[in-house]
Order: sequence, then structure tokens, then C-alpha cells
Amino acid sequence: MRITILGAGEMGSALATPTAANGHDVRLWGTGRDDAIVAALRAGQPHPRLGPALPRAVRVFGEAEIDAALDGAELVVLGVTSFGINPVLAQLGDRLRGARAILTVAKGFDEAEEGQIRPLTDLVAERCDAPVVGIGGPSIASEVATGHPTAVVFALPDAATLRVCHDTFETPVYRVETTSDLVGVEVAAAMKNAYAIALGIAEGLQIATGASHHNLRAALFPMAVREMARLADAMGGRAETVAGLAGAADLVVTITAGRNRTLGEMIGTGVPVGEAVRSLASAGTMIEGYAAAEAGHRLARGFAGKGGVGGAYPLLHALHAILTEGAPVSETLWAAVG
Amino acid sequence: MRITILGAGEMGSALATPTAANGHDVRLWGTGRDDAIVAALRAGQPHPRLGPALPRAVRVFGEAEIDAALDGAELVVLGVTSFGINPVLAQLGDRLRGARAILTVAKGFDEAEEGQIRPLTDLVAERCDAPVVGIGGPSIASEVATGHPTAVVFALPDAATLRVCHDTFETPVYRVETTSDLVGVEVAAAMKNAYAIALGIAEGLQIATGASHHNLRAALFPMAVREMARLADAMGGRAETVAGLAGAADLVVTITAGRNRTLGEMIGTGVPVGEAVRSLASAGTMIEGYAAAEAGHRLARGFAGKGGVGGAYPLLHALHAILTEGAPVSETLWAAVG
Repeated sequence: MRITILGAGEMGSALATPTAANGHDVRLWGTGRDDAIVAALRAGQPHPRLGPALPRAVRVFGEAEIDAALDGAELVVLGVTSFGINPVLAQLGDRLRGARAILTVAKGFDEAEEGQIRPLTDLVAERCDAPVVGIGGPSIASEVATGHPTAVVFALPDAATLRVCHDTFETPVYRVETTSDLVGVEVAAAMKNAYAIALGIAEGLQIATGASHHNLRAALFPMAVREMARLADAMGGRAETVAGLAGAADLVVTITAGRNRTLGEMIGTGVPVGEAVRSLASAGTMIEGYAAAEAGHRLARGFAGKGGVGGAYPLLHALHAILTEGAPVSETLWAAVG
Repeated sequence: MRITILGAGEMGSALATPTAANGHDVRLWGTGRDDAIVAALRAGQPHPRLGPALPRAVRVFGEAEIDAALDGAELVVLGVTSFGINPVLAQLGDRLRGARAILTVAKGFDEAEEGQIRPLTDLVAERCDAPVVGIGGPSIASEVATGHPTAVVFALPDAATLRVCHDTFETPVYRVETTSDLVGVEVAAAMKNAYAIALGIAEGLQIATGASHHNLRAALFPMAVREMARLADAMGGRAETVAGLAGAADLVVTITAGRNRTLGEMIGTGVPVGEAVRSLASAGTMIEGYAAAEAGHRLARGFAGKGGVGGAYPLLHALHAILTEGAPVSETLWAAVG
């Protein structure tokens, strides 16, 4: 199988490991932002952000070599974040047409022109004629790249194509669960980043006050899973998907390590939201959960019914108030628990 | 309301804070093991294991003063661990008769004489004529004692008595959710300690290998919740209880801090199970999850049907094999994920 991975950042590059281990012809294309990475990889050096070197069989392509990179590709991995996906799709034009399936690691929502919010896979599907597989589940890229045990979920209603993707990617250390519930995986994958901010805030309170706040943080966890399940259900997905790898499991990783937790921690210690977001952005870190909280809140508003967002999605509503209205963090989070 | 807390360890003593804050007449009785604590508290010193001093209004009683401690008690809190509950019940004789309700913080199962395994509240209920309320949810005792936000769940089928307990304990910082699903709370509260060992093992692998194992640990989380829900369901409880404070939320705390996680970590780093258990026990630390894994596995065997425990409860089965048969930790855990 010929597989082209678009985006030589951490997660895109990491996926070269299982696919190359299965003996496929793997090509990795770097966007303009990945020039330094491409140069390092071509010089046989370790991936600058990922740690380990790539498998030797992987061929690396620079930005200008997009046509060569995609030549004959049967499976294409969109290995860019939700912030990178629009520019990369624009750059690709109709080059994705012809692939058997597109897999995407981006987590988030897209705002369509009429203001409607939709899963990112819908956006991708518009630009190609292949089915778009969503990838969810706890996968710290460096662990995938070094071959430490990782279990993920691939989602697509089309079972035959899903099976092909499964067989192409699964290795003894990279286990691929499959589900038809693409919506559930997408909602969970996007929203767990938002809820990780909320739980990160509880950690920040701990740092700010010097007093442990484990009980508060833990109490927020099942609320996060419940609200993600409610949102998935409202959008046509399934609660059990959210309770699994793409939701609860990935939330466990995201609250243990990661940018979204870091943003929450900063807010919890008293850094104003705007300042925290700018400071992370200036260090090159875009916060997917921040955008997901806003998009998720707008979606939830549409589904909430009479009780409003605060009734059906109290934690998301509290998070939104903290992020956008400067609501006091400790009181607002705690009020959501009640 | 007159409330007597039996057991002056961390959790028993911590519950003096919300009840005293509500203006109740709170009495704390220390078992023979609590002599040093009782002496310190009577001298006006901070609780030696809990940190803060108790509220001034709380009256402290030593082991010999059990009758005075229980005199006129309307609510009784059994504040001892699952290991302490049998000896304390034996010591109490029929002194619990007369209370309006007994609340218990112990998490675990009891082995009845005929070898049948049952929730601890059944054991307690045998010794008194009052309803027995199970307490679940993430509550690190020091946070409860210092008045940091904590949300717990009280469980009892009898709604009127449950309401009395709720109103007696709930404060602005100690929030009490209520449920009729006592079985669900008990299974979750007991089994989360067992599953925390499994997730702790993944942390130990991280220490042993120097390579992060976040993905494996996270993948185990939803399996733990799913298996606890299955066991609760088989015993007449409800899956949504397990997904809430007593299960998923408390598991988040238990894998972040606590003895059960520590045991897992030791096993993951390669310490033989027996040695790890003995070493913790000799430091005065009994591991509730170790006993719960054994009891839970026996229960699961009874419910598993044709596929066996490994089919319906793969993670519990793997944990059991590691704890009792010396199965290789990394391979055994990972095989359970598949």
C-alpha cells in the first residue's frame, strides 16, 4: 500500500512508524512550516520535535514536492492540526481526489461559511471524493513513534474501507479499534481538549493556593464525559463512543500532559485568559481546546432546549464563561458541579 | 443532630469538618489503633495524619469511651477501612442498634462464612437495624478536612433517610449527590481501587523503562470503567452510577495519588507482587485494591458466562493474573487491551 502523510509535525510523523513497520511504501510531506523538520529528517537526524528518527524506509518530501509525495497514494493521512487543515486543504486543491481513503488526526470543528459548525471530517470530505476516516484515542506522538503500546480508534461508517485502514495501520503495539460512529469520535476528540482546560484550571488552583484540589478536578471528570456524550448524542453520535478511547481515555492523557491542560493551569493560577492564550501562541502553541470550547458552546446552545446551555452542559457553560467573560474560576467551576 | 464518627483515621476525622460546619453535635471515637491520634487531638494539636486541627466543637473519645461516644447518636459514621470494619463491628456488639442511619466510608467486599462475597454494607446491615448508607466519590481526606471543594455520593434505596443524611452533611464546599443505587456505588468504590493498581502498573513501566507509557495507561481507563459497570450491572446496580463520582471520578483521584496506585507502580517497576504488598504492609499501609481485585475476580467468575472472566472482564482478569500468578506485567496488560 502506498501511504502519504501530509504534515511532518509530531503526529503525522509518528504515524510513519506503524505503517512502515507493516512494510508499506510511506511518504511524509512537510508543509512550509515543517521546512526545518524536513531538512533534519533528510540529513538522517532525529525528528526535532518527536525525538526518535523515522523508519529508514520512509521517504520525506518538502513543500514544493507535493505532487511527487502524493503520486499514486492509496491512503492519505492528513497529519495537521485543526488550525493547519484549512490552509493545507487550500494548498492541495484537488490533489486528494483519487485516494482510496483520507485519514485525519485533526481534532476540532469547522465553521462553515453560513456560520454553521460541523466536524472537521465534513470539511475534508468536501474537498475529496474518498471517505474520510477520523482517528481518535490517546496517542502521545512520541510513544507512537517509539513503538510503545498505543490503542486508538478509527471511525467511518463504510466498514470495508475501515477494515483496509485498520489492516494497514495496526501493529502489535499500535492497536486500532474500529467504529462506524464518526460523529461520536469527532465530538469526543474535539471536546476533550476543551474539557481538559477545565480540569487544568483545577490544577492551577492547586498551584495558586498551595492546597491540593484533587477532589474538585476528579468531580469534573465524569461531568466532562457526560456532557461530551450528550453533545455527541445530539449530533447523531453515540454515548459509548465518548466513554471509550476517543473520549474518556484521551481525556485522561490530555489532563495529564498537553497544551490544553497547560492553558487551564495558567488560568487557574490567575493569569488572565487573553494573556495566557497569547503567551502560548507566541511560543508557537495553538490551543485546540480553546477553539473547541467556543464552537462546542455554540453547538450546545442549539441543542440545549429550555434549560439553556447551563442546564444541559453546566461544565461547558462554566468553562465558556471563564474563557470569554472573565468569570471567577474557582466559584464558576464549583457552581457547575452543583 | 447528634453524629458519632467511629474511627479517628483520616477519612473519619475529615467528616467532622462538614458536619461540625453545619452546627451538629459531632463526636469522634478512636479505635485502639487511634490512641496517638486521640491524644494529639485532645491536646489541641493538629490531626497527626490529616494535617489540620479538627473543628473546636468536635468532642473526641478514646477507645474505652465507646458508650459515651455513642450515647444518643442519631447518625453513626463508620469511618474505618475495609480491613478495620470486622474488628470494629465485633467490638461494637449491638451498640449500633438505635441509630437512625449508619454511613460507611469503607470500600470493599466482605467474604461471608459460606464463602459468598457481598458488599460491605450488607455486613454492616446485619449488625444493626438502621439503614446503611454507602459513601462514594473522590474525597482526599485532607481536602475535606480543610474545606476544599469535594463532591461525593451517598447511596441508599430509602429516599427519606437519604435526604436526612444529605441535609446533615452537605455544605457549600462538601456537595452530596444522592442515589438509590447502593450496589453501584459499592461496586465502584471497591473496584476502582483494584483497577487503580492496573493503571499504576502502567506508571511503573514508565519508571522502569524510562519511556512514557501514557497511551497504555489511558487506554486502560475506559476498560476499567466498562468492567466496573458490567460487574455492577450483574449485581443489580447501574452503569451510570459507575460512570459518575463513585467510579470514574474516584478512579481519577486514585490513579493520581494513593496506595493502590503505589502498589501498581512498584509491580510495574519489577518488584515482585508479594514483596511489594509486604513492604507496604510493614509500613502500615494495607492495600484495599489488592483484596478487591481478588474478591472482584471471584464475583466476575460467577457472572462471566461462557467467555469466562477473560472475555467479559479482560482487564480484571489480567490484573488477577499479574497479582496472583506472577504473569508478566507489560505483555499481560497489553494483551487485555486487544
